[in-house]
Amino acid sequence: MESPWDELILSFSRTSMFPFFDIAHYLVSVMALKREPGAVTVACKNPLSSWFTAMLRCFGGGILSCILLAEPPLRFLANNTNILLASSIWYIIFFCPSDLVCQAYSFQPVQLLAAGMKEVTRTWKIVGGVTHANSYYKNGWLVMIAIGWARGAGGSIITTFEQLIKGTWKREADDWLKMSYPSKITLLGSVMFTFQHTKHLAISKHNLMFFYTIFIVATKVAMMLTQTSIVPFAPFEDALGRVLFGSQQLSSSSAKKSETKFNGTGSSTSKPTAEASDNLQKKHSKTE
Amino acid sequence: MESPWDELILSFSRTSMFPFFDIAHYLVSVMALKREPGAVTVACKNPLSSWFTAMLRCFGGGILSCILLAEPPLRFLANNTNILLASSIWYIIFFCPSDLVCQAYSFQPVQLLAAGMKEVTRTWKIVGGVTHANSYYKNGWLVMIAIGWARGAGGSIITTFEQLIKGTWKREADDWLKMSYPSKITLLGSVMFTFQHTKHLAISKHNLMFFYTIFIVATKVAMMLTQTSIVPFAPFEDALGRVLFGSQQLSSSSAKKSETKFNGTGSSTSKPTAEASDNLQKKHSKTE
Amino acid sequence: MESPWDELILSFSRTSMFPFFDIAHYLVSVMALKREPGAVTVACKNPLSSWFTAMLRCFGGGILSCILLAEPPLRFLANNTNILLASSIWYIIFFCPSDLVCQAYSFQPVQLLAAGMKEVTRTWKIVGGVTHANSYYKNGWLVMIAIGWARGAGGSIITTFEQLIKGTWKREADDWLKMSYPSKITLLGSVMFTFQHTKHLAISKHNLMFFYTIFIVATKVAMMLTQTSIVPFAPFEDALGRVLFGSQQLSSSSAKKSETKFNGTGSSTSKPTAEASDNLQKKHSKTE
Repeated sequence: MESPWDELILSFSRTSMFPFFDIAHYLVSVMALKREPGAVTVACKNPLSSWFTAMLRCFGGGILSCILLAEPPLRFLANNTNILLASSIWYIIFFCPSDLVCQAYSFQPVQLLAAGMKEVTRTWKIVGGVTHANSYYKNGWLVMIAIGWARGAGGSIITTFEQLIKGTWKREADDWLKMSYPSKITLLGSVMFTFQHTKHLAISKHNLMFFYTIFIVATKVAMMLTQTSIVPFAPFEDALGRVLFGSQQLSSSSAKKSETKFNGTGSSTSKPTAEASDNLQKKHSKTE
Repeated sequence: MESPWDELILSFSRTSMFPFFDIAHYLVSVMALKREPGAVTVACKNPLSSWFTAMLRCFGGGILSCILLAEPPLRFLANNTNILLASSIWYIIFFCPSDLVCQAYSFQPVQLLAAGMKEVTRTWKIVGGVTHANSYYKNGWLVMIAIGWARGAGGSIITTFEQLIKGTWKREADDWLKMSYPSKITLLGSVMFTFQHTKHLAISKHNLMFFYTIFIVATKVAMMLTQTSIVPFAPFEDALGRVLFGSQQLSSSSAKKSETKFNGTGSSTSKPTAEASDNLQKKHSKTE
Repeated sequence: MESPWDELILSFSRTSMFPFFDIAHYLVSVMALKREPGAVTVACKNPLSSWFTAMLRCFGGGILSCILLAEPPLRFLANNTNILLASSIWYIIFFCPSDLVCQAYSFQPVQLLAAGMKEVTRTWKIVGGVTHANSYYKNGWLVMIAIGWARGAGGSIITTFEQLIKGTWKREADDWLKMSYPSKITLLGSVMFTFQHTKHLAISKHNLMFFYTIFIVATKVAMMLTQTSIVPFAPFEDALGRVLFGSQQLSSSSAKKSETKFNGTGSSTSKPTAEASDNLQKKHSKTE
């Protein structure tokens, strides 16, 4: 006989993302699109292109997952209800008289609520991806991790492709050296849900969904409230990195020190501060 | 009992594109390729690369449609007859002694005939795409529109990818703000054939094929004869844009006016003329 | 009753590539990755990105073949044994204390042995690709050639895509005018194995595998020993080119001569020497 707590968690794991959580996800994604330079101009001059970009932002993870499993990437267009919902949100955000939606979104409680609900959808996408990949490859735990990751945070790759085609993608030099926070948190979740699915993690799926969701929502809200980019598991990440890849990191940093000495200026001291403020700015504007 | 007119239209809708209309399509596509700077050099130094580019131009729409429906993109290579035909046309165009084919193609009646026949193939491709997508997703009218559009005018996207890989793609700043005329006309056709297929348009398929084909052939020939880029449905397009997206367009144009005033010169008056002549030049050289 | 020679060749054709030949292939691929500028830095700062790039180098041909046949590109991740083997080799190469593996690899006999064994895997990949494509398209000999080619030498295309996304791909102006030696040799092999499969070449599969393997291993080792880029079948290639595409080549070279005269300097004489030494350098560093 299950306790009320178990029943609560079980009901939580059976919550449908449609329509409210999906609305929050579409809202955050399209608002991030609107804030990009030139997005409003594109919406006026070529609404179809703007609509398509918005759909890629809203359904990007699913599209990437389809591509990786050789399923039709256009499959998301067959889900008429969700397409209609996302299209309505795009239309309201870009063409609402007096920009009412954007003004309402500028209040922080609204942003926090929407961001929190969007994080909830991340859990559901990871779980969906892991389960779906398992139907293709029974023991393919790497495939399950990859598909869970693609569904949960793969939208940015689709966005990158689209910007590459448009010629609007400015790759910054160190982009590929740092994984974004959403990427890391989604990878962690994908690994945990895969090991739970293959019975290597002794926790039930609904419990894991609950605790993982609480964790990512809490950290996201805390990061937005404190305007900080400090990742909660950064110390563990550094320790793991040193254990596995430690000697090369030490030799790499010593190589860097000798480069700095050779340059002869104190530029290395000012660089971390500039880098930290850049990261903070990116975190507020970027979303996946 | 059908009238002779009905029988005529029915026979027209059952015409096979092979071989004459396909020849016209391949001819126009490969001639457009030959006119690109450096194409002849590539054909001499690396005939395989030139041949592959020509095949992408000839079969690009089908390839894109396969990618979007997760079918083997290489499937077009299994159709040995069409590949042989397209390859022969490529060979004759690039390696014919004294450039006989190009000299014959330089006569306007030949160009008009080939362009007209190529437009006929567009109808057949759209219809094929819509029907094929319907076999995948019964009520997926968005998928049907997308696949019809991809088959009819998607070759340019495949060409863009190829140029992106080669590094020869120069994206012009406003490219994504304007859809080309072939894109618009194909989208319109795809929408109409999809609604006819889902019984939302009260017209038989062969009638729609006939009238749509007459329309696109007539407009294409008229545009080539008058050397103009005026799109026949531009007024309707503008009106629809103002109704659906009107307020933002007005605010966008007023934002532009204030920008021009701030710049202090009369450059805004000269820009439309330069833009119109650029468009005209593009329409003659570009083809899909 | 088969002769001992036939039995020997038959046993050779049934040799499994796992584990030793696969190890050689992964070793050569990852060593080539390590020698690229910045690769060590990426491995220290973002080991996951470095690992993924290494996997693309090791399994690139199979991934491309999957994409072209609309099979899941992630399928290689389901082969846990090979992934574990390739990952171990990546880890040892990048993070071995005192760079022991790289120091051992710097001896020429080790490089020759590894390169030779890698060439053996090329044959197996081509044969696998041709057979696999035949299961899809019975008479599609072009598809069979393309898939055999993709499996045997397609890794470079996947690498190019990856560098394109990262923004580290510097396309040199004449890249698309010259096919690399591995591309040419793989295409030749793919054509031969396809015609053997369709019974157009009167030789048994195991004999063709043996002689083709001997040929590509011998030429590869000879090119590494003599530090030369002279392709053994270049005269036949030139002759075939002149027969099929000859008149245009003559007119193209005469067009070039008139360009050189117009420029007024003797730069055309110095260019071939510089070009030859560039090619030699590229052949030693590039691998597929």
